Amino acid sequence: MRWLKSAGCWPSALLLAGRVGLRAGPRTASGSPRDAGELQGELDRFGGVSVHLARHRALHGLDAAAFRRLLQAALQQWRSEGRVAAWLHVPILQSHFIASAASLGFRFHHADSHSSTLTLWLGDGPSRLPGYATHQVGVAGAVFDDSTRKVLVVQDRNKLKNMWKFPGGLSEPGEDIGDTAVREVFEETGVKSEFRSLLSIRQQHGSPGAFGKSDMYLICRLQPCSFTINFCQQECLKCEWMDLEKLARIDNTTPITRRVARLLLYGHREGFDKIDLSMEEFPAVYTGLFYKLYHRELPESYRDTAGTD
Amino acid sequence: MRWLKSAGCWPSALLLAGRVGLRAGPRTASGSPRDAGELQGELDRFGGVSVHLARHRALHGLDAAAFRRLLQAALQQWRSEGRVAAWLHVPILQSHFIASAASLGFRFHHADSHSSTLTLWLGDGPSRLPGYATHQVGVAGAVFDDSTRKVLVVQDRNKLKNMWKFPGGLSEPGEDIGDTAVREVFEETGVKSEFRSLLSIRQQHGSPGAFGKSDMYLICRLQPCSFTINFCQQECLKCEWMDLEKLARIDNTTPITRRVARLLLYGHREGFDKIDLSMEEFPAVYTGLFYKLYHRELPESYRDTAGTD
Repeated sequence: MRWLKSAGCWPSALLLAGRVGLRAGPRTASGSPRDAGELQGELDRFGGVSVHLARHRALHGLDAAAFRRLLQAALQQWRSEGRVAAWLHVPILQSHFIASAASLGFRFHHADSHSSTLTLWLGDGPSRLPGYATHQVGVAGAVFDDSTRKVLVVQDRNKLKNMWKFPGGLSEPGEDIGDTAVREVFEETGVKSEFRSLLSIRQQHGSPGAFGKSDMYLICRLQPCSFTINFCQQECLKCEWMDLEKLARIDNTTPITRRVARLLLYGHREGFDKIDLSMEEFPAVYTGLFYKLYHRELPESYRDTAGTD
Repeated sequence: MRWLKSAGCWPSALLLAGRVGLRAGPRTASGSPRDAGELQGELDRFGGVSVHLARHRALHGLDAAAFRRLLQAALQQWRSEGRVAAWLHVPILQSHFIASAASLGFRFHHADSHSSTLTLWLGDGPSRLPGYATHQVGVAGAVFDDSTRKVLVVQDRNKLKNMWKFPGGLSEPGEDIGDTAVREVFEETGVKSEFRSLLSIRQQHGSPGAFGKSDMYLICRLQPCSFTINFCQQECLKCEWMDLEKLARIDNTTPITRRVARLLLYGHREGFDKIDLSMEEFPAVYTGLFYKLYHRELPESYRDTAGTD
């Protein structure tokens, strides 16, 4: 891993950075209003500079060619000052400036809803800027009723081949794994449930369902809190409580469903501690945010070895 | 989960869709070249229509106002035809059309490098279009030498507090978990290693290091293939082979590192089968792509219950 690409270290610097006034080089000639010669930028501790176009009222009346001259002068100055990267944050209604930036080498880093962010590496060698989100995360819920040995399964509507699978779907932004599983199961089947453990993780690349990005799919073990099925007609063709041994045997299911059914069968017979990853919440060291950690159950004697978690 | 948001089902439809000629309503008046009145769109099986501006040579000479009239007419027609969504794929050098689309309600879905994609929901009720990638994925490698009971740890440079941790970093686009772990360990420390198992998964939201997106961090158990440390001076302050029992005890480490050190200690004493998630590769049912599945080791007798995996 290269310096600037350290997980999580680059953009946090943007938050820490102070704002500085940056004159965009010598005042440009015709076409630019008098007061558009200043681009207010923010330095970060990695030697980059970030410009939020929304904060530049003087740019409002500027045409694309004048903006290009302004940006070109700014780039010249930033290079002379040894800046290693430039970031442009562009509100969607100011997108007419994007092609100008692109003609100077800027490319999209990402865009979401009302704005886009462009980047240009100014330092030596290849860019060391970190990329954007690379994965979508989906979660399925294996709702297993230990007393009846039945598990909740669905068949999707609109599939080329009808196969039994666990209900599930994509995480909403900012949603925890267990919460996605419980929500998706309820939305698809009407069954209420509680998170028990994480069972399995699938990683897949280039899935056509992920806009060219990668896909991480997690399967959770859930405990049912209600049993009446009221399934989503738009999404599901069938939904039922199926005997777990049957699901582990039948052909019209996906390989991942069959594998997890057998894992559940093993857990049911030998103890769920054989298959579960338990979950615990921790405070993050630097940010004070909380995160969730999933791994095999650790005996109490190992938790208390010394120090505090 | 709602119909269109089914994990992975929407965009695959775009690939399956045939292309159809769509007239953008009545020929618009002044400002638009004669042949710009046709937008070539692709229908998908969910009732959406997708337009690739790069394929419309007639748009090249068009100004933003004329494009807006063209798009407005097209939207009117698509609505009358019952289309539920519109997608615009915009090359970066045609970004001057974006503000026009935004003024008609389009918003960024995503952007990457040379192009952006905008969406507008045309159907009833709130949008049921799937979002874009929500997570970055990082991987750390816990390289443990069973014979000496030592584990490879680093201290990051440029951190406010120096703490021992496992080497690791962000996955490159399309990179498997184990490959990221092995690559990051080598880049940071110069030590070669092989993937053995997945040990733990951390999920965190709103991390400042993820441009507002979520973060999934996985820790793998790796087997060392070489032992000489040649660490990256740009990234690491220190790097050493540390006694595992010491790492499980000391204070200047992160909670996740200490927890995984204790998990490793448990595995070392009681057998790694107590802590490991094993990995296996499967072919995907619909796409023919391969994916990797991680879960607890399943005894042979359960793998062979019936049917084939």
